[in-house]
Amino acid sequence: MTTQQLVAEIRKKKSFLCIGLDVDLNKIPTHLLTEEDPIFAFNKEIIDATHHLCVAYKPNTAFYEAYGIKGWKALEKTIQYINTNHPEIFTIADAKRGDIGNTSTMYAQAFFEDLAFDSVTVAPYMGKDSVEPFLAFEDKHTILLALTSNQGAFDFQTKLIDNKEVYKHVLETSKTWKNAHNLMYVVGATKAEYLADIRRITPNSFLLVPGVGAQGGNLQEVCKYGMTDDIGLLINSSRGIIYAANDSNFAKAAASKAKELQQQMETILK
Amino acid sequence: MTTQQLVAEIRKKKSFLCIGLDVDLNKIPTHLLTEEDPIFAFNKEIIDATHHLCVAYKPNTAFYEAYGIKGWKALEKTIQYINTNHPEIFTIADAKRGDIGNTSTMYAQAFFEDLAFDSVTVAPYMGKDSVEPFLAFEDKHTILLALTSNQGAFDFQTKLIDNKEVYKHVLETSKTWKNAHNLMYVVGATKAEYLADIRRITPNSFLLVPGVGAQGGNLQEVCKYGMTDDIGLLINSSRGIIYAANDSNFAKAAASKAKELQQQMETILK
Repeated sequence: MTTQQLVAEIRKKKSFLCIGLDVDLNKIPTHLLTEEDPIFAFNKEIIDATHHLCVAYKPNTAFYEAYGIKGWKALEKTIQYINTNHPEIFTIADAKRGDIGNTSTMYAQAFFEDLAFDSVTVAPYMGKDSVEPFLAFEDKHTILLALTSNQGAFDFQTKLIDNKEVYKHVLETSKTWKNAHNLMYVVGATKAEYLADIRRITPNSFLLVPGVGAQGGNLQEVCKYGMTDDIGLLINSSRGIIYAANDSNFAKAAASKAKELQQQMETILK
Repeated sequence: MTTQQLVAEIRKKKSFLCIGLDVDLNKIPTHLLTEEDPIFAFNKEIIDATHHLCVAYKPNTAFYEAYGIKGWKALEKTIQYINTNHPEIFTIADAKRGDIGNTSTMYAQAFFEDLAFDSVTVAPYMGKDSVEPFLAFEDKHTILLALTSNQGAFDFQTKLIDNKEVYKHVLETSKTWKNAHNLMYVVGATKAEYLADIRRITPNSFLLVPGVGAQGGNLQEVCKYGMTDDIGLLINSSRGIIYAANDSNFAKAAASKAKELQQQMETILK
């Protein structure tokens, strides 16, 4: 999917909501546990109930790998279901991968070709030759970790190199890499006040913003500092939406939470 | 496996060799491609031929994920085969994972419990709360990326924060984390001259050292600067061993390359 197609979808749906499909079998409604594939059954109901309210889905691969082959099958079925029924929706494999060149190419093939995701999240620690193999895929997007939403972000990401934070070096350096136009960045909503600085470095890139809701980030603040003429934001919510209820009405409850966020977004977009 | 057990195995085998099981279907002998599971068939022959020469096996998960469910099955069969037939061998899931706390816990369960690896490689960018969930597992080891063997290591890892390289901050900071005794570190052999400095910060930790052989690192140099009283080194070779030949004698050729390295190690250990 091109960035232009994503922007068009945002304007059409009046939403820049991304829903995180982080399925934990300890948290889903118990009646689903008798299904042949409880993880996919859960995702299918969530997708059916929310696809008109969001523009992106983001399964975090950890939640699938934790269930071994069963989990990997559920991930495959989930991405196939989205791509078949809602090809207009942007898909993100939240995998936080990154390795030496030939190995990153294997990861890129896994997520862009085998699973056919539109994008994948990548960690920057190993530098240019660990990220460029992902960037080589046309109309696929590499979402680089810049400033994450967790407390541990202050351990290394905000430390100063030549009076400039590590995450700003990541932003600036990555802009010089081959096919940098395929880059997006992860910036946590819990650090909204950093967004003005970030927009000075990367005025137009899309930012994937986790941490609104359960982690305490504020939507209005994020939009105030981070929004561009072409929106430039994907706001992710996972637990706050998919675990809104855990009885037979869970999908309806999820849609209701998604609708709340979509309506706040519609107001902001006016 | 405890560190003491690993050290005992090194002394017994006179080897601190780790073999990287990075199986690429384009590189294995073509006669294996008709097997039901060519990846596992390849690994099984390599393991049967080399297990007496090495103390660790390290599958890089990228090579398995690239083949989807088939790949994940081959990974499961490989680790089960090692754990069943050679439980004395230390196993490393080279996964370079790392995510916010609850998600890192899912990864830790995937690799330590579901797949029963002894250790997993983890990226440090997201800081303390992304790594501590791995460290919480007793007698399991978290191998943190410090200084990697690729060119991109110079993009961020060697940059200076308060006159000290980023990777040194990673080493020092990680030593303060809960259950830090379960930490090991990745340090590339292509940067052997950095090892003296690294040993000043972490005099006793085991270091996993990739980059000997195909990537140009020198074994003698690494040992000169990195070896401790309890050895403290695992030297990895992947392509140089497993792709020594690609005809029906590939396993024999791999054993011969592994034997060369083991004998160099035996001489160093004297």
